[in-house]
Amino acid sequence: MPPVDPAALSPPPPSIGPRVRTVPPGEDRERLVCPDCSYIAYENPKIVVGAVVTDNLGRFLLCRRAIPPRRGFWTLPAGYMELNETTEQGAAREAMEEAGAHIAIDALLAIYNIPRISQVQMIYRATLAGPTLAAGTESLEVALFDWKDIPWDELAFPSVVWALHEWRTRAGQTGFAPGTNPPPPVEGL
Amino acid sequence: MPPVDPAALSPPPPSIGPRVRTVPPGEDRERLVCPDCSYIAYENPKIVVGAVVTDNLGRFLLCRRAIPPRRGFWTLPAGYMELNETTEQGAAREAMEEAGAHIAIDALLAIYNIPRISQVQMIYRATLAGPTLAAGTESLEVALFDWKDIPWDELAFPSVVWALHEWRTRAGQTGFAPGTNPPPPVEGL
Repeated sequence: MPPVDPAALSPPPPSIGPRVRTVPPGEDRERLVCPDCSYIAYENPKIVVGAVVTDNLGRFLLCRRAIPPRRGFWTLPAGYMELNETTEQGAAREAMEEAGAHIAIDALLAIYNIPRISQVQMIYRATLAGPTLAAGTESLEVALFDWKDIPWDELAFPSVVWALHEWRTRAGQTGFAPGTNPPPPVEGL
Repeated sequence: MPPVDPAALSPPPPSIGPRVRTVPPGEDRERLVCPDCSYIAYENPKIVVGAVVTDNLGRFLLCRRAIPPRRGFWTLPAGYMELNETTEQGAAREAMEEAGAHIAIDALLAIYNIPRISQVQMIYRATLAGPTLAAGTESLEVALFDWKDIPWDELAFPSVVWALHEWRTRAGQTGFAPGTNPPPPVEGL
């Protein structure tokens, strides 16, 4: 039996595509560059589009997540914006994909910046435009909740809480500036 | 001399990284997938952040583009949002990079969707917070224009025109909904 080549036991180093972090000529920050062809893989923040959707009884549409992160917790219908759609089209698409819901978008409720994960969330205010709901592949179930029955302790993300409260603040209002992240809590005195 | 291998004369087909357009399991649309490792290179819209900036005489800050597209035409300080910044930080960074300008952001003036090129532009209203200006590497020159002197025929993009007019519409107002793309022109009668 020949001696084992140690290189065959370790995973190979990444050897294809953009894989070197360096400051390209004329730029001011590190980019992910392919050392073979100099292609720069620009990385930019992603947009999440979603909506606070209510029905004609004032109930709120929530989806229980079937996928990580926060599987089993409740969230707004929302997800990554796709190529060649508008933000409004994306929010309506997500409501259909995750909750089987036709929605009518009314206003931009809030914009939340989550720079830690390079995400910008654009959350619209919308109403249910049809009677049907159906859990999509990313939802365990979908449901309509009166405000007092919202499962506050089982909401998936802080921005879900922020958006629901923004909805209450803006009830009956039009032509308002979209809400933003709440200020961080004051740390003691 | 051995016969020439014909394969050595043609460029090789793309042979590394995400290069196959296919619908991955559990997805509903084509993605760019690596056939070797199944890595999915998700492609999403990019955010452009910028600002309509005025000085204390009510003049508008414009930059003459040193790079394509539309080299030589005038634009707002604006550019692609970077990782790990907020939209406001990005707009301020672009004003510094392209015009050497410290700005104070006041309100979100407009959001323009350009789905053809998968771009969402977030344009803020801001004022100059310091006296200095300096053309950055992406600007041939920077200047402050009175409204009547804006080089309307030499503006780089439709959204520059839209944002400047949105600024005029909102002059003196606070707490307004951000503007959006104007309706497409009516085609005849």
